[in-house]
Amino acid sequence: MKVDIGGALSEAAEPGVSRDALDRLDERVGTLHERIEAGIDDREHGYAALALPETVALGEITAATDSLPDVGHVFVVGIGGSALGAATACAALPTDADLHVLDNVDPAATGPLLDDVPLADAAVVVVSRSGTTAETLANFLVVREAFEDEGVDWTDRTLVVTGDDGPLASLSDEHALPSLPVPTGVPGRYSLLSTVGLAPAALAGANIEALVAGGREGRDALSGSLYDCPAYAYGAVAYALDSRGASVNAMMPYAEGLERFAEWFAQLWAESLGKNGIGQIPQRALGATDQHSQLQLYRDGPAETMLTVVRPQERPSLPVPDPDHEALSYLEETDLGRLLDAEYEATAASMTAANRPAVRIEIDAVDAHSLGRLCYDMEAACILAGELYGIDPFVQPAVEWGKRAARGLLRGESTAETKTVTERDALWIDGE
Amino acid sequence: MKVDIGGALSEAAEPGVSRDALDRLDERVGTLHERIEAGIDDREHGYAALALPETVALGEITAATDSLPDVGHVFVVGIGGSALGAATACAALPTDADLHVLDNVDPAATGPLLDDVPLADAAVVVVSRSGTTAETLANFLVVREAFEDEGVDWTDRTLVVTGDDGPLASLSDEHALPSLPVPTGVPGRYSLLSTVGLAPAALAGANIEALVAGGREGRDALSGSLYDCPAYAYGAVAYALDSRGASVNAMMPYAEGLERFAEWFAQLWAESLGKNGIGQIPQRALGATDQHSQLQLYRDGPAETMLTVVRPQERPSLPVPDPDHEALSYLEETDLGRLLDAEYEATAASMTAANRPAVRIEIDAVDAHSLGRLCYDMEAACILAGELYGIDPFVQPAVEWGKRAARGLLRGESTAETKTVTERDALWIDGE
Repeated sequence: MKVDIGGALSEAAEPGVSRDALDRLDERVGTLHERIEAGIDDREHGYAALALPETVALGEITAATDSLPDVGHVFVVGIGGSALGAATACAALPTDADLHVLDNVDPAATGPLLDDVPLADAAVVVVSRSGTTAETLANFLVVREAFEDEGVDWTDRTLVVTGDDGPLASLSDEHALPSLPVPTGVPGRYSLLSTVGLAPAALAGANIEALVAGGREGRDALSGSLYDCPAYAYGAVAYALDSRGASVNAMMPYAEGLERFAEWFAQLWAESLGKNGIGQIPQRALGATDQHSQLQLYRDGPAETMLTVVRPQERPSLPVPDPDHEALSYLEETDLGRLLDAEYEATAASMTAANRPAVRIEIDAVDAHSLGRLCYDMEAACILAGELYGIDPFVQPAVEWGKRAARGLLRGESTAETKTVTERDALWIDGE
Repeated sequence: MKVDIGGALSEAAEPGVSRDALDRLDERVGTLHERIEAGIDDREHGYAALALPETVALGEITAATDSLPDVGHVFVVGIGGSALGAATACAALPTDADLHVLDNVDPAATGPLLDDVPLADAAVVVVSRSGTTAETLANFLVVREAFEDEGVDWTDRTLVVTGDDGPLASLSDEHALPSLPVPTGVPGRYSLLSTVGLAPAALAGANIEALVAGGREGRDALSGSLYDCPAYAYGAVAYALDSRGASVNAMMPYAEGLERFAEWFAQLWAESLGKNGIGQIPQRALGATDQHSQLQLYRDGPAETMLTVVRPQERPSLPVPDPDHEALSYLEETDLGRLLDAEYEATAASMTAANRPAVRIEIDAVDAHSLGRLCYDMEAACILAGELYGIDPFVQPAVEWGKRAARGLLRGESTAETKTVTERDALWIDGE
């Protein structure tokens, strides 16, 4: 993976980072790199995520997934970080089975999906550290019943990924289900390269060894200077641009397979950095599609957005047949990938032409090794940015209130949270 | 459709709008409503979009789509506003055929898709006003050749939606293809309720009459006071919150079927309002999934985000089977939809509890009538916001530079744009 920060310099963009400021930032990066290395070595909470390429037990994952039947459909039942890692991997990589992500509780979506998928040809991975996550457990209960209704024994095709105790651990014991531990010290959004992300991906047939090897390459590439380390260069520049007014970071991969990656990045960035009134707001986009949607805003709206474009350097070939119309002569002898690459270059340059900041990230290909590297590097970038902001990128206290409120509402309880829900003043405009 | 702006008032949130400020804003809304009504009546550029429920020729659309064979797969070939309307409708509504949206030029996605879909059971709608849009024409050439390679006559299953002249109009004449006009005065992002959005949706089997009837309900609901008009209430409050610091608007429907609607809204908002250095930055999200991802940021990150949550008041029933574990007792006798509704309420209230602005939108159901109403109202909201900002919401000048650059690159030309692409200074960090 390599990163071009030329379009984020003050000579190219406003907001932009001067070369002097970058040098000063680099001194902080040197110090913070030592902090991060110590955290990795000691397997400290959060930092342990960056040790995963060394610590993850690939053999245990493979043994667990091999104990399930070969199937054409895999359900992953989880939400947030418990689902997005596997979803990101399986959206980008070749798989043998279709992955169906049950990361929401919409009856209008879940019902038809369970009707459509042949359950005798399906397996389930259910993922929740606590074993009590409302959405996950509700979905799992629904899925389990659907298997029973079809006369398919769910106990021979369910893999549990959970903590040491809780309802899922009990269930696993009771039915002797294969199970894998959620790693300690690894928050969900950093868990792609752990049992959480890898077990469903392996069951679907993705190459998890190459994913981890890519992560290891990212581990080896961490170094004490942003000028030598793409991950730190990205984290430092994003932090510096945010500090100078680019409060939004639009992540725009030029590859359909990386659309979910942009969603994964948005979770990583939002939940890790958005606290104490600070943090950069991620916006997910997809090139070239969103050029025809968001680019007007990025170039000519508020000067508050940094654009991150990502592309693979290798793409499959799909030649465009010669057009039989003179107005289309610019499409002669081209290829869809060449067109997409031209759009990538043009969009990045169009930001520079408008004096707005843009960063380019290039990976070798949309394959398992490059994806593992990309995700590892983004995690390292995020952790470095957290250190620069002076916030803890491994906690998410502000999501707890809503969870308590939802549970209270379901129980019909009267708590501080449910009272806020029921007693807040609405001002409905209904035109009637 | 109804809108609750109680959570956007200054008594509930910071930034927030005081009741006095809302009254003052309402006076401007009265004047601007007259401007908008005149624009609709005169079919002025842009405003013509709000006349579509009256002007769209449903009979012509049905006649055109009826001339094609009944198929199980519909390709819509277009990009930006030429694709998102149909994609939004077909993602939300029951259809007879699968809609495949070719709105990108990624060979890694298009190639496998064309291999997988049985082309003898497929039809194509190609949409481009100019008939020269690079991505659309390249994809159409690829699709056409795929049909030829399969021995399927594409000329008896291709519908063209385009302007009066250009390569697509010529092609339509040459092969006597059924064709429909792109409406004049309607920018792409406002074209869901026109031939552009409705023809592919009709071919896929969506109920376009009900979509238009929903739009007509929105048309009838426009009125001179934001207190009587949900569309204007939403547009005015979003504008007022942005002016007070909520530079980001996170659109978060609590319905999987509306995930594409959030994308459609993001295009509408970004391309219409993001110009001259102003405009509110849309961020797309999905409830409940993104509660486990973005909510930390919304509640505790920079006080720059207004949250818009949307839900249908009716959902299908999908009971959650009773859990056999005490820790899960809060899931007893519930339903997936009830859980999702509890999350919706809890998330909106959690913003209020954190003193952050949130607006609730409720529609009757995820059905064609309600979707037509919702999209019409959001267009009216966007146009009102444009009037309030004092910008033209119907142009998108900043996207043209990149289009010229990409074409120049493909042609191998040396132009001002291509020189910017090739001569801008990169600063690659590759760690090697």
